[in-house]
Amino acid sequence: MLLKDSCVLEITITHFSGFKWRSYLKLARVANKEHPLHLSLGGRLDEVVVAYETYGHLSEGGDNVILLNHALTGDSHPSAHTQHDEKGWWEPLVGPGRPLDTEKFFIICANVLGGCQGTTGPASPNPDTGLPYGMNFPEITLLDTVHVQKRLLDVLGVHHVKLIIGGSMGGMQSLEWSVAYPDFMDGVMVIAAPGYASSQSIAYNKVGRQAIILDPEWREGNYYGGIGPEKGLAIARAVGMITYQSEMSMEGKFGRKRRNGCFEIENYLDYQGNSLARRFDANSYLYLLRALDYYNLLKSCNSYEDALSKIRAKVMVVGVSSDILYPPYQQEELVEAMCDSGVDAQYALLESPHGHDGFLIDFHLLRPMIRNFMNHLIK
Amino acid sequence: MLLKDSCVLEITITHFSGFKWRSYLKLARVANKEHPLHLSLGGRLDEVVVAYETYGHLSEGGDNVILLNHALTGDSHPSAHTQHDEKGWWEPLVGPGRPLDTEKFFIICANVLGGCQGTTGPASPNPDTGLPYGMNFPEITLLDTVHVQKRLLDVLGVHHVKLIIGGSMGGMQSLEWSVAYPDFMDGVMVIAAPGYASSQSIAYNKVGRQAIILDPEWREGNYYGGIGPEKGLAIARAVGMITYQSEMSMEGKFGRKRRNGCFEIENYLDYQGNSLARRFDANSYLYLLRALDYYNLLKSCNSYEDALSKIRAKVMVVGVSSDILYPPYQQEELVEAMCDSGVDAQYALLESPHGHDGFLIDFHLLRPMIRNFMNHLIK
Repeated sequence: MLLKDSCVLEITITHFSGFKWRSYLKLARVANKEHPLHLSLGGRLDEVVVAYETYGHLSEGGDNVILLNHALTGDSHPSAHTQHDEKGWWEPLVGPGRPLDTEKFFIICANVLGGCQGTTGPASPNPDTGLPYGMNFPEITLLDTVHVQKRLLDVLGVHHVKLIIGGSMGGMQSLEWSVAYPDFMDGVMVIAAPGYASSQSIAYNKVGRQAIILDPEWREGNYYGGIGPEKGLAIARAVGMITYQSEMSMEGKFGRKRRNGCFEIENYLDYQGNSLARRFDANSYLYLLRALDYYNLLKSCNSYEDALSKIRAKVMVVGVSSDILYPPYQQEELVEAMCDSGVDAQYALLESPHGHDGFLIDFHLLRPMIRNFMNHLIK
Repeated sequence: MLLKDSCVLEITITHFSGFKWRSYLKLARVANKEHPLHLSLGGRLDEVVVAYETYGHLSEGGDNVILLNHALTGDSHPSAHTQHDEKGWWEPLVGPGRPLDTEKFFIICANVLGGCQGTTGPASPNPDTGLPYGMNFPEITLLDTVHVQKRLLDVLGVHHVKLIIGGSMGGMQSLEWSVAYPDFMDGVMVIAAPGYASSQSIAYNKVGRQAIILDPEWREGNYYGGIGPEKGLAIARAVGMITYQSEMSMEGKFGRKRRNGCFEIENYLDYQGNSLARRFDANSYLYLLRALDYYNLLKSCNSYEDALSKIRAKVMVVGVSSDILYPPYQQEELVEAMCDSGVDAQYALLESPHGHDGFLIDFHLLRPMIRNFMNHLIK
C-alpha cells in the first residue's frame, strides 16, 4: 500500500519559488518506485506527491465525501479553514451552512498533477537526478490527474464519494471521473466545462504556450533559480483573461477608459499577468494547457454516446450564458448526448454577464443550483 | 502643390524586405519638408509617400470615383489588373461587370499610412537620418491615414467621390472619412467595423503587440537587415486569426483533427503566422494595432450623436452575424446612433458562419448588398 501523508513531509516538493506553504496543506505520496504512476500518454512517474486540503470530518460510514476540483490556476484551497485563514477561490460555497456544507460533508480538494502548488509537477525534483524536471516532465492528461486523485482517496480510506464537483478544468476532471470510475460517485456536477476541447480553445492555448516559449528567460524550461519567463507567462495569462470574460462585461468594466497613458484594459491585463507570473510556474502552465487540449471524453470510443454510456452517476451540467471559452451550446450538446446514452443528466444555464469566470463570481446563482442537485442526490 | 507620382520613383520606399513591388503600383509623394503631415497625436512626418493602384478611368466630370480601403494586413491590390496579374483580396467584387465595376468607375486603393506595402511607415527611411524609423516613427491614427488619402486624391485631381468602402480597418477609415470630410462623398459602405474600438479588441491587440516586443529579434524595433521578430509576429497573427473566425467555423474546419503530432488548428495557425511574418513588417503591425486601439469616431465629441451628426453621406453598415471581433450589435448601435443624428443610414446583417473574415469570404452575399447600395446612391 502507498504511504500515508505524514510520511512524505521530508520530500522536496517543488523548485518553484512561488509555491506557498499553507497551514492546512497536507501531502500524500501516491506513487513511488515500487508503485509508479503509468500515464495515459505512455510516460511514467516514479514519485508523485499530492498536496490537498480537507474540510469537515469523514463520517463513520464514509458516506459523506465530496471531491472538489480546482480550475487551471487554482489550488487545494477553496475556502478558509478558520476565521484568520486566507479566503479561498470558492469561499461562499464551501463552509459551515454553505452549499458544500463542511458541517455535514468531508470535502477534499487536491492540487492537480502537473500543478505548482504542492502536487508533483515540472518544478518538482526528478528522482533520477534530484533536479527539477522542467521539460523532462512527461506529458499528462486530465485523466492522469483523476488517477492521482483516486490514489489519494485510497490513501484516505475513501471508497465512495457523494459528489464530485468543479468548474472549468475542474469540471472536466469531474467528467473524466464519471467515465473512468463510474461506480465511485453518486453525482457529478460540472460548471462551464464541455465534453472535449474545441479547436478554438486549443488555438487560445497554443498562443499562450508560444508566448511562454518565446520568452528568452524560459531557457527551454530550465529557468529554476532564475527569473523565469514572467513576460511570456503574463502574455499567456492575458489571453486567458480575455477568454474568461465576455465582450460586454469587459466593455462595462473598462470601455475606453485610460490611466497613465494606457487603456484601463491594458493596465488590468498587465496586473493580472504579472500577478500570475509571481504565483504560478510557467512550465506547469505549459503542461496544463496541453492537458486541456488533450481533454476529450470520447477518446478511443466510437461515439460520444459510447463513452458516456459508462456513466452511472447522476450528472448536472451548468453552462454560463456569456461564456466565450466554452460556449453553453457545448454543454447542452454534452447533456443531450448523455441523455441519449441513458444517463440521468440535467442541464442548467447560469445567466451571467461575466463570461466563463461566472463560475467564480455568480455565487448567488450557483448556490441554489448546488443545493438542488445535492437534494436530488440524497433522494 | 504637392508633387505628382512620377516624381517620386527615386525614393527609397522601405527597408522592409517583404515589400513586393507590383506592376501596377504607383507612388505619390503627399508630404515633404515644405508641406509636412501634422498628425492627430502631435507628431509630424516630413516625407510621406503613398503606394496606390487604380482601376478603370476617371470620367470627364470626375464623378465616378470609388475609394476602396484595405484591412489591417491588406494592401493596394484588391484585384488583378490583367488576366496574368496576381489575384487581389476582393477579386470577385472589383473588376469589369463586378459590383465595383471597373468599366464604370475609377477605383482607387492605397496602402495605409504606417503600412509596409509601399506607403510610408516604420520601415521607411527617416529623412533626417536616412535610416529606417523603427520605433521613432510617430504614433498615428486612422484619421491620419484619411488625411493622407485626401492628399492623394488632391494629387490625382479628385474633388468628390461616389463611394468610400471597406471592411474591418478599411471600414473604420471609411467612417472616419464620413466625419472628417462630410461633403466629399455620396456614400459610405462599411463592413464589419464598429464606431470605436471596444476594450476586448484593445485587449487582443495588446496581446499581439506584447508578443512582438517579447521576441528578442525585435531589438527595440531596430531589426531591419536582420531576421526580425518573426516568431512574435506569428503569435500576434495567431491571435488575429482566432478573432477573425467564429468558434463554429473553426470547429467545422479543424475540430480535433491531428497531423504530425499536432492539432490541425495548430498547424494552421503556424502556417498563417509564418506566412504573415514573411510578408508583413512587425513594426507596421505594432503601429497599426495601436491605431486600431485609438479608433473612436466620438473622439472629443460629447456624444456619439454629436460626432455622427456631421455626416452628410448616405451610409450602409453591414455586420457579420458570427463576428466575434466586432460583434454585430456594435454595428447596430452605430447605425441607431446615426439615425438618431439624422443620418441616412441603414444596417444589414451578413448571415455568415465565417466570423469577421466573412467580408473576405462571403462574396455571394456582399455582391447584392453592394449593388443595392450603389443603386441607392445613384437614385
